[in-house]
Amino acid sequence: MSRIPVDPARMLSDLDHLRTIGGQGTGVARRAFSDADIAARRWLAGRMREAGLEVTVDPCGNLFGLPPGDGRCLLVGSHSDTQPLGGWLDGAWGVACGLELARAALESGGPPVAVVSFQDEEGRFGRLTGSSVWTGQMSLAEADACRDEDATRDPVRFAEARRRAAEIGPVGTVPPARFVAFIEPHIEQGPVLDRAGQALGVVEAIVGVRQWSFRLVGEANHAGTTPMPLRRDALQAFAAYTVALNAAFAPMAGERTVWTLGRAVVEPNANSIVPGAVTFTVQVRDAEVARLDAMAAEARALAGRVAEARGLALEASSGFSVEPVQMDARLRHALEAAAEAVAPGRWRSMPSGALHDASNVAMVLPTAMLFAPSIGGISHNPSEDTGRADLATALEVLAEAAGRLSLEV
Amino acid sequence: MSRIPVDPARMLSDLDHLRTIGGQGTGVARRAFSDADIAARRWLAGRMREAGLEVTVDPCGNLFGLPPGDGRCLLVGSHSDTQPLGGWLDGAWGVACGLELARAALESGGPPVAVVSFQDEEGRFGRLTGSSVWTGQMSLAEADACRDEDATRDPVRFAEARRRAAEIGPVGTVPPARFVAFIEPHIEQGPVLDRAGQALGVVEAIVGVRQWSFRLVGEANHAGTTPMPLRRDALQAFAAYTVALNAAFAPMAGERTVWTLGRAVVEPNANSIVPGAVTFTVQVRDAEVARLDAMAAEARALAGRVAEARGLALEASSGFSVEPVQMDARLRHALEAAAEAVAPGRWRSMPSGALHDASNVAMVLPTAMLFAPSIGGISHNPSEDTGRADLATALEVLAEAAGRLSLEV
Repeated sequence: MSRIPVDPARMLSDLDHLRTIGGQGTGVARRAFSDADIAARRWLAGRMREAGLEVTVDPCGNLFGLPPGDGRCLLVGSHSDTQPLGGWLDGAWGVACGLELARAALESGGPPVAVVSFQDEEGRFGRLTGSSVWTGQMSLAEADACRDEDATRDPVRFAEARRRAAEIGPVGTVPPARFVAFIEPHIEQGPVLDRAGQALGVVEAIVGVRQWSFRLVGEANHAGTTPMPLRRDALQAFAAYTVALNAAFAPMAGERTVWTLGRAVVEPNANSIVPGAVTFTVQVRDAEVARLDAMAAEARALAGRVAEARGLALEASSGFSVEPVQMDARLRHALEAAAEAVAPGRWRSMPSGALHDASNVAMVLPTAMLFAPSIGGISHNPSEDTGRADLATALEVLAEAAGRLSLEV
Repeated sequence: MSRIPVDPARMLSDLDHLRTIGGQGTGVARRAFSDADIAARRWLAGRMREAGLEVTVDPCGNLFGLPPGDGRCLLVGSHSDTQPLGGWLDGAWGVACGLELARAALESGGPPVAVVSFQDEEGRFGRLTGSSVWTGQMSLAEADACRDEDATRDPVRFAEARRRAAEIGPVGTVPPARFVAFIEPHIEQGPVLDRAGQALGVVEAIVGVRQWSFRLVGEANHAGTTPMPLRRDALQAFAAYTVALNAAFAPMAGERTVWTLGRAVVEPNANSIVPGAVTFTVQVRDAEVARLDAMAAEARALAGRVAEARGLALEASSGFSVEPVQMDARLRHALEAAAEAVAPGRWRSMPSGALHDASNVAMVLPTAMLFAPSIGGISHNPSEDTGRADLATALEVLAEAAGRLSLEV
């Protein structure tokens, strides 16, 4: 068996319908376990049944469409919950691809494929909550204690919200051992493919993160009466640090390393007062642990040097740290070969700079990801979009790769 | 007549008493037209009458103690209102000096001296409100429309607040033409004298201010998925600007020029989002108009160059602008000669980096200022302080200068 005979138009039709559930203008509002999310999952479950798939909803609300029988099979999918007001493709496209692959495989008697829509990827309650529990990265008890981060008062807990799982379909358990591998199709959410005019990205690794929180403390003084040489100006130190960090990082960084000073708060933040303190974060992302650790160490050391040179105090705390996750080599190679077969020269290998359910699933199953281009790199925004031809092309690549993998099993 | 025979202990005793009215810990809370402010002005009016001075309160609440007769005389004083929680010397010391000089002059038959406590120097309603109206820089109607900036709800207007003037003493008008000159003794509110171990500062000029508000607008993006070369990071541009501005200003600045980036707000200010915009101010203070204007122009031009080089948009608006005010040469020389006579080698000429009532009065009368050292440069703070010996020395210098000036009239 080679390529599974998928119908891109049917996948796009499903996606167009999904967009109407919780649709707001060009965007979609389907927070995990909201009415719109439940409605979307109920509709997806119906489409799965129509295709002959067996529907199971796990206690977290993860929705599985399983081919008949007990054989282990490939799992394809993503998530159908959204940001508070997100785009129409973030997650949903991966689920639509999984549904079409599973359906077309059944219709054609091809290699069996299952589809999944994980729950709460977008973190209404936690962070990748559904896949975290499914893969054992988080216990159900821990998830249950998470509170609705969107709520301004009386936040509901995950324990209470997930009672709605039964509205989606029959609740049961679906162990990871049911599957041989997982592929998550997802929009890139960045500008690399779009800028390069390429149609596909085969993910090599999901990058890791190192983050420091720093506070430079000088002395707040009257901006008129304090001579320049007597100042201990925290904002000047922060600016000097930011510029010096670029110089220090340049020889350490790889081509795809990124670093960001995304947050900075100045105190007291008044026009006529020399800044007394600046609190800020430095975040580094890369696919290699050694580079991440070296750059994090340099960020810390440089902050110390800048503070000392200027007579400032430094408070430093290392914030969140995420290990890079390598994608499975065999799956990657299958996707690369399929990409070259379907869209020769129009694909690239690349890291994923964002976290995905695949980060969790990679802990328990061979896992890979396929990216479609995001127009203008825009995501988490109602204007998020991808050309329909690109969405269709990526589905063909998935169908080709699934066929190739089935030959190897 | 040479030095007026002042009694420093009596001045300090007045100052100690004044500190108890509205006292909170080591600080003082006497906002303009508060109960404590009225009580302090009533007490000062009583001390003036005891000394044989004629008390007049103008419609703004400026309190004058005038020597008998119609002859023009020297005016000495400052303000007795405070910051919401200010120090015990900011303003009050200048008033206590004026009171002692006027009293000692009357007692000794010396050259007549009048004392003033201006109202709302610390800007509960406006900025230097009392002296602004008295000198015609602001109309009474404009002042009347000012609202209580401290109030969180139902702010009272100056028009209503100033009805309390009648509680202080008889309301009347005291034209500037009644005086030949004005000297304002004030604490430095900066660290220059304290660091140098000097007792006195004769003010050459009150510096002017130029201020720009800038907004650098790039593009907010996902910190994981946006490669470094594709970013338009407003915070990186801001840091580069801050560092480059120091280099650009270095050859333009005089020894006492100061510049401050006191305020910066990052958007959206999240750890994992490349900053899309930074709004900030650049403030320059100097005693020379030409230098101020050249530096303000460079601040604007550099912001344009940085924005253009990085593909960012720049919004620029010139904020508040204050012209420098030169102190009267004859008064300055009298203070310098007196300082050298009383405290040889322990004084310096210097600019005032802060605004004072003297800024207004200089528009209508020959005006000068004498600074006493602020320990640690601290002011607008309950820990504001000056050595009692320094406060006494400065009073002797004022007495000496007043005597010298009277010989020249």
